[in-house]
Amino acid sequence: MSKPSKPIKIEKLTLKKPYGLVVVITGNGKGKTTSAMGMVLRASGHGLKSCIIQFMKGDLYSGEWDGVKLLGGLAELHATGMGFCGIQGNPYTHAEHRASAQAAIELARAKMLSGDYDIVILDEINNALKLKLVDLEQVLALIKGKPELIHLILTGRDAHPDVVELADTVSEVCEVKHAYQRDIEPQPGIDY
Amino acid sequence: MSKPSKPIKIEKLTLKKPYGLVVVITGNGKGKTTSAMGMVLRASGHGLKSCIIQFMKGDLYSGEWDGVKLLGGLAELHATGMGFCGIQGNPYTHAEHRASAQAAIELARAKMLSGDYDIVILDEINNALKLKLVDLEQVLALIKGKPELIHLILTGRDAHPDVVELADTVSEVCEVKHAYQRDIEPQPGIDY
Repeated sequence: MSKPSKPIKIEKLTLKKPYGLVVVITGNGKGKTTSAMGMVLRASGHGLKSCIIQFMKGDLYSGEWDGVKLLGGLAELHATGMGFCGIQGNPYTHAEHRASAQAAIELARAKMLSGDYDIVILDEINNALKLKLVDLEQVLALIKGKPELIHLILTGRDAHPDVVELADTVSEVCEVKHAYQRDIEPQPGIDY
Repeated sequence: MSKPSKPIKIEKLTLKKPYGLVVVITGNGKGKTTSAMGMVLRASGHGLKSCIIQFMKGDLYSGEWDGVKLLGGLAELHATGMGFCGIQGNPYTHAEHRASAQAAIELARAKMLSGDYDIVILDEINNALKLKLVDLEQVLALIKGKPELIHLILTGRDAHPDVVELADTVSEVCEVKHAYQRDIEPQPGIDY
């Protein structure tokens, strides 16, 4: 292998002006919650603190629950959901799911305003809004009430247009294909 | 808040049949490398081991470099790239970038066949292929030579159709909007 003509110099960006972003990750493909978890890992490398509130997950174990515990106290996760409302086999009523999501909104507000975190992730809040477990006004109030320098990440399919409008960065993750279409079951570490 | 009628029972899926997936995360939006890093965090929660080889990154610090070090030895990262080939200011020739990417292919093969990892991530290998730093045959050979139970993740924009064809799960991350369009500089933890 040829040697590079110049040694590789590693540059570290310095911020001219810190800016608290609103990021929305939506779409029907794999990689929304996953992407939010990647931001947590990346942020931890910078020594930044993250708080994750999962609006839907709570009844089915997912690897990130233990993954964040490895990050030396830089991230905490609250799986406040009761599973996917309306999906066959889920035993809870809409009113129960809504009460749980309403508590999650209060928790999100408290965490966001606590000053303890650099990044707050509202995981699958878009789904919770679509399912009427939370109201549009509540989500918009969270975004508009965000402390200036906090990054607020909202994930889940079917992001509301008014949420997209307020965001700085929005990605739509589209499913090109997925293993489940060939009856391959979800794999730990990849799918959950 | 009303109490749920039934206590929330946490279920943990058990695999009927482990399956080593090929996952491709492509597209022009934010959330490809990020998503791969999320899989690393999630996999670490399951006690699975990951190896990340970054084909393009190497000259600009990114938070995941230190983030993975927090995972108690469950993940290792090799930033073997020399920055983005052809981008203004990058001081290396195409031949130098190619030599570096060729070494990364060899490293990827060795890591994949070592038996030491459950997940191998070829970060931005799609870009490396598009830029002719690696050849299509090399990438296809890696995929086809994958040990059965290893998950192989390939990221980067412009995924080659033949790579997509071989993959089990493919997501395209589309940019709806991005903060840089309003001249907001990249933010640590979110963008790098």
